[in-house]
Amino acid sequence: MSSAPALRINADRLNSTLQSTCTQWGALSAPSTGMRRLALSQEDKHARDWLVQECTSLGCRITIDQMGNIFAARRGMAKDRMLRQPIGMGSHLDTQPAGGRYDGILGVHAALEVLRTLHDHQVWTHSPLALINWTNEEGARFPGAMMASGVWSTKSSTPLEACWETRDKDGVRMKQALADTGYLGETPCDYTENGLQAHFELHIEQGPILEREGKSVGIVTSVQGMKWFAVRVTGREGHSGTTPMPERSDALVTASRLIAAVRDTALKTDLGVATVGVIHSDTSSQATIPAGIDFTIDIRCSTDEMVDELASAVFEAFDTIIEEESNGTLYVVQRTWGLPESKFHEHCIAAVRASAVREVGEQRIMDMKSRAGHDSAWTSRVCPTSMIFVPSKDGISHNPNEYTSPEHCALGAQILLDSVLHYDKRLKQGEW
Amino acid sequence: MSSAPALRINADRLNSTLQSTCTQWGALSAPSTGMRRLALSQEDKHARDWLVQECTSLGCRITIDQMGNIFAARRGMAKDRMLRQPIGMGSHLDTQPAGGRYDGILGVHAALEVLRTLHDHQVWTHSPLALINWTNEEGARFPGAMMASGVWSTKSSTPLEACWETRDKDGVRMKQALADTGYLGETPCDYTENGLQAHFELHIEQGPILEREGKSVGIVTSVQGMKWFAVRVTGREGHSGTTPMPERSDALVTASRLIAAVRDTALKTDLGVATVGVIHSDTSSQATIPAGIDFTIDIRCSTDEMVDELASAVFEAFDTIIEEESNGTLYVVQRTWGLPESKFHEHCIAAVRASAVREVGEQRIMDMKSRAGHDSAWTSRVCPTSMIFVPSKDGISHNPNEYTSPEHCALGAQILLDSVLHYDKRLKQGEW
Repeated sequence: MSSAPALRINADRLNSTLQSTCTQWGALSAPSTGMRRLALSQEDKHARDWLVQECTSLGCRITIDQMGNIFAARRGMAKDRMLRQPIGMGSHLDTQPAGGRYDGILGVHAALEVLRTLHDHQVWTHSPLALINWTNEEGARFPGAMMASGVWSTKSSTPLEACWETRDKDGVRMKQALADTGYLGETPCDYTENGLQAHFELHIEQGPILEREGKSVGIVTSVQGMKWFAVRVTGREGHSGTTPMPERSDALVTASRLIAAVRDTALKTDLGVATVGVIHSDTSSQATIPAGIDFTIDIRCSTDEMVDELASAVFEAFDTIIEEESNGTLYVVQRTWGLPESKFHEHCIAAVRASAVREVGEQRIMDMKSRAGHDSAWTSRVCPTSMIFVPSKDGISHNPNEYTSPEHCALGAQILLDSVLHYDKRLKQGEW
Repeated sequence: MSSAPALRINADRLNSTLQSTCTQWGALSAPSTGMRRLALSQEDKHARDWLVQECTSLGCRITIDQMGNIFAARRGMAKDRMLRQPIGMGSHLDTQPAGGRYDGILGVHAALEVLRTLHDHQVWTHSPLALINWTNEEGARFPGAMMASGVWSTKSSTPLEACWETRDKDGVRMKQALADTGYLGETPCDYTENGLQAHFELHIEQGPILEREGKSVGIVTSVQGMKWFAVRVTGREGHSGTTPMPERSDALVTASRLIAAVRDTALKTDLGVATVGVIHSDTSSQATIPAGIDFTIDIRCSTDEMVDELASAVFEAFDTIIEEESNGTLYVVQRTWGLPESKFHEHCIAAVRASAVREVGEQRIMDMKSRAGHDSAWTSRVCPTSMIFVPSKDGISHNPNEYTSPEHCALGAQILLDSVLHYDKRLKQGEW
């Protein structure tokens, strides 16, 4: 690989573009550098419109699919290029309600910087390339994380129409939000009709491991499995003053014990992580014993078997608590979403590894599993995929304090460029 | 008292009026007999308008004060009647978001039935009488239970302007809701300017004691003390997939342990009752570790000292949990509201006792403390007050299944009539 062109991305341009667009569309109030750019909000629409304009100015062809995914394709040189699917570089521009500037956004900006660099130097790849902005990766506005890449991979448990029908908390249907922002495209959201030859994604680690180990780059080999559950606890309403303590059937007290048990079980079994992210009570009166509580559970482990094992342990703990309470409180649980463990492709992993080693050397890279879900988990089911991780300061993410240094952002973008060129060259040579 | 007139209320009229107005204004969907008649809602306005019309048709003079309290006064025969303050019969027409047909509503309807009975028989008391509908007793829409009787008694910790500024969950100010419904009166909400000579209130017990003891009537001698607190638990937001379990500062897990401790401490100390009625999380994302949880605590005991003792025990338990967690989660607590222990007046208690004994005999009555707060707790601070309790089926209240039999409703109304006549007679005779 020593003969590879010494093509360098423009680190200043990458970082200043990322910061200035974040400041413009979705920034929380200064001095926070946090972001609130919910999927298909006005902030997201502005960022999308800008992205489409930038890619168009680089000569890319824009395709919007039925889920609002943006594909910005740059032509390749291959004789069969009209038949060839592009090598994809995807991530997402949406954020959590109080997230940061790097989760997702860095990956899209790095892909744009790759396209800009190739354009500046008029370098043409063999295969076409495509920047992809996947819609609603966070699932923070419309429930269902990695939603649109899930539909595209057609292995998602949620079909197109069901996703269109999901509503945000104000009752707005997703299809309406797509139409309102101008991103309800006609191209099928289906890899068999609008496919990719491979998918690369630069992302921040969102955890503390790279920083702690003193590494600069993570070569991501898989994404852990995850399942989401909705739990409803029921009891009996009653007056807070007149109902004697021993006669209560208090749904909130029982739910509280269950929530603590989710954490305790994850700690005790050491199988993975389990989180109750959302809680809601039917009761809005301070003087009423709550009778209905809803909460969610998010379980993630290295393997699908471990996810199931941890879930079983949690629900066994629940049953014990219900028996201990023995006061008429009950729970029902519903599985709402899941992402099976995903193993990335050896060729894509090899392309990332070669590029990372060349940039920073063996000592500063490490192989890792992703503990967060990513669009790449879905794409890996239908096309060769891998990811590049760069460090997150203090491991913080989904938080306004999320931070990745400009140097690490630039390093990641450079490795994304190198990986795509490496992969393209091997394809051209017929080796892969 | 054997010479008292054998004046009988009309049980059928009382019960049919109560049921038909509940069906019309605020009924939950059949077959539930539950009610949702929030203070100053359209349902409450209709019920109020109807009440004003009924009382007007009986010749009463209507006064609306600055908190929307309705005073419907019937003249007395005393020579100094223009100077005399009325003997009050008060309760409330508003309900919990999912309450029943008897809590408060029975007391107002019984007072109306007393006025109707006196009107039918053209019986004139010595002192004037007044039916009172107190505004926002439940505190379910505008936070602060027994709000308007609290302002009227001027011993409330919440002055008029602060109450006007309270907002419902949609942001509507109470003063606006008063104006919108036509119940922002000009009469000062102040017992020194619009006072009562005494206050009687018929109410359902809202607990299981009368039923369990086989009694028909409770002679209420006091109301237990109560304090409300707002607790905020803070932690650190983080990604549910990438934040290792031991590194979390999860506000919801800590809050859950605190909520369970509220119940456990009340059970263990046996000082009174403690309830977490409302919980709210800042986080709306299933994939984010919650960083901010708010919940309320309602503590009620027989004496103010016991309230403080139970509160101290709860917060000691909180401190232990925070120390055990030792993960950066913290809590802050704010006292939001309180009602000191209230002792009712010997004359009013005697009037209720004499009337109850005459109706059902010594064997079917019992003295009791009220475990729920009532408008009478406030009035008792500025005028002689007592209450009559009738049984609640299964002790259920603040619940659509709240039920008191027509016979018990009628019995309560009869005792209310007799108590007022008894009290009035003693006043006339100059004995009290």
